[in-house]
Amino acid sequence: MTGRAPAGSASGTTARRRGRPPRTESADTRDRILTAARDEFSERGYEKTSVRGIAKSAGVDSALVHHYFGTKEQVFEAAITQSFGPALQAPRAIEEGPLDGVGERLVRFFFGIWENPATRAPLLAIVRSALTNETAAAVFRRIIATQVLRRIAVQLELPDAELRAELAAAQLVGTAILRYVLRIEPLASADPEQIVARLAPVVQGHLTEP
Amino acid sequence: MTGRAPAGSASGTTARRRGRPPRTESADTRDRILTAARDEFSERGYEKTSVRGIAKSAGVDSALVHHYFGTKEQVFEAAITQSFGPALQAPRAIEEGPLDGVGERLVRFFFGIWENPATRAPLLAIVRSALTNETAAAVFRRIIATQVLRRIAVQLELPDAELRAELAAAQLVGTAILRYVLRIEPLASADPEQIVARLAPVVQGHLTEP
Repeated sequence: MTGRAPAGSASGTTARRRGRPPRTESADTRDRILTAARDEFSERGYEKTSVRGIAKSAGVDSALVHHYFGTKEQVFEAAITQSFGPALQAPRAIEEGPLDGVGERLVRFFFGIWENPATRAPLLAIVRSALTNETAAAVFRRIIATQVLRRIAVQLELPDAELRAELAAAQLVGTAILRYVLRIEPLASADPEQIVARLAPVVQGHLTEP
Repeated sequence: MTGRAPAGSASGTTARRRGRPPRTESADTRDRILTAARDEFSERGYEKTSVRGIAKSAGVDSALVHHYFGTKEQVFEAAITQSFGPALQAPRAIEEGPLDGVGERLVRFFFGIWENPATRAPLLAIVRSALTNETAAAVFRRIIATQVLRRIAVQLELPDAELRAELAAAQLVGTAILRYVLRIEPLASADPEQIVARLAPVVQGHLTEP
């Protein structure tokens, strides 16, 4: 990733070349801004992060950040969606096999993301922002509701499927907080397989038990 | 609670009357400082709160805050212990009846605290601080480990009792975060009795199932 500024600034009516840089450079710049946004939100939290700071860190003009993403809230939503990329695949873990193994598949999927430091760090940053800022919480809530819980609920085909999915998610999220954020022992050092063995039947029960 | 300053400032060697105000006034001042501390930590979070700010809000000298509690970390620990007063009674919910009803008693106890706005607000503030600051997390971890989990584990008399208590706590904490912090529907508006009915067997299973 290079630090050079994009050739075409796209700040409203003054933009040259119809306001858009060529497609490949555009994708590169967009990625660079998203990475900078994720780092800024991680380090400073939602409230202390500014579009100006994200632009500076990405080596572009603030106007370009607004051009690609809109407001700070929208940059945050795009950064969440990127950071949550792996987590947003959770509904697939349900589709990929028989319903009576869904508990174990979901638990393995969830801890697979959290046990990997590369996917854990951005996830943790976003969760922290969502827990401490109402705007960030609203964005997080919308993404989780529409992209994860609703899709899981559709797979289950039960009338109270969304509540079931949320109580299963609560067990997983709570375990992640005690293990990775608060690091309470012995859970913090427990073998991941032991956690899978304990939680798979609980998640299964939430999702499918009558 | 009055706003007047205490008669005797106890800042080290210059303190009058052997450095301590009379007992009743002392208890009153101590409470006033703790309430101010809780409010400051709630509003500003751990990092942005200062002993000077707590002292100002309580209408006393910073030296008096140090005299009663020590460092900012120690003030935080005292504020947690006070805010968590109700929650620290959780081990009693286990002792108070037969072991096969412990799941329901713990879930009722936990949501009884969270459903009450007066006990929810300070709890939420402390949890947010613990999730976003490492020092605050360490204090929180020590209190939860020594005053809640270890005592529950002793009651259970099982070799892996602490891990069991933590996985049960994870289900409860995760549900509180989805319901009260992120307010994800339908969980956020679900009837407390419905939540008790769903979670009691899960918590019971974590704690006592072979």
